[in-house]
Amino acid sequence: MPKKLAKRFNCPTEFALDVLGGKWKTVLLCYLKERPCRYRELRLLVPRLSDKVLTERLRELTEKGLVMRRKEDGHASVVTYSLTPKGQTLRKLLSELYAWGEEHATAFGVEVGEPLKRLGVRR
Amino acid sequence: MPKKLAKRFNCPTEFALDVLGGKWKTVLLCYLKERPCRYRELRLLVPRLSDKVLTERLRELTEKGLVMRRKEDGHASVVTYSLTPKGQTLRKLLSELYAWGEEHATAFGVEVGEPLKRLGVRR
Repeated sequence: MPKKLAKRFNCPTEFALDVLGGKWKTVLLCYLKERPCRYRELRLLVPRLSDKVLTERLRELTEKGLVMRRKEDGHASVVTYSLTPKGQTLRKLLSELYAWGEEHATAFGVEVGEPLKRLGVRR
Repeated sequence: MPKKLAKRFNCPTEFALDVLGGKWKTVLLCYLKERPCRYRELRLLVPRLSDKVLTERLRELTEKGLVMRRKEDGHASVVTYSLTPKGQTLRKLLSELYAWGEEHATAFGVEVGEPLKRLGVRR
C-alpha cells in the first residue's frame, strides 16, 4: 500500500508534491495526461525503470486514485492506463513542468529527450 | 556539495524535478519567488524543519545557483535570501504548484495552511 496522504499540510506546495509522489510517478502522469497509454508504451518511455518498479509505480498511482487500469475488450492481456478525473486536475501543472524543462535545458547545460513525440503528440 | 545535475535526461519533466530538488527546496523556492526573505522568516514558514536541515537546504539552493545569500548593509548578522535570475525562471511553475494545492485540497480531504499570507502576499 502506498503511504497515506497526510490530513494537513503547512503549505499547498507540499501537498501538491505529495500527490505527485516523486519523480517517476510524475513522469508517468505527464505521459498519461496526453492520452491513455498501454503498458508497453509506458515501458518504452521510461527505459531506465525495471519492469518491477514500473508496475509498482503504476499500482501506486492507481491506488491513489489518479490513474485507472483497464483491460482492452477482447484482449485481456492488453492493459491500458489513463488518468481518472482526479488525475486530470493535474494536467496544467504537469504541462508546466514539461514545458519548463524543455525551455530551460540549454541554459542549464543539459540535454533533454522529447518523449512526448513518441506518443505522437505535437508541441 | 549537492548532487551534480546530470547532463542528459530522457524527459524534460525529470529534469525540471531534479532542478527543484525535492520537497523542502521546492517549498522554500515557492516562498522566495514572492520576495526576498530573511532567514528568520523562512524559519517560521517551515517550522517542521530543524535549523540544521533548513540551513543545508538553503546552502544547496545557493550552490545550485537558484538562490543568492546576502548580508544586510550594516547588519552583518541579518542574512537575506532571494532568487537569482536562474531561480526566477521557476516562478510560473512554482505558482502553479501552490495554486493546484490550494484549489484541490478539499477534494482530496486535506487541509492546507496559507503560508504566503505570512509573507504579506495577497492572493
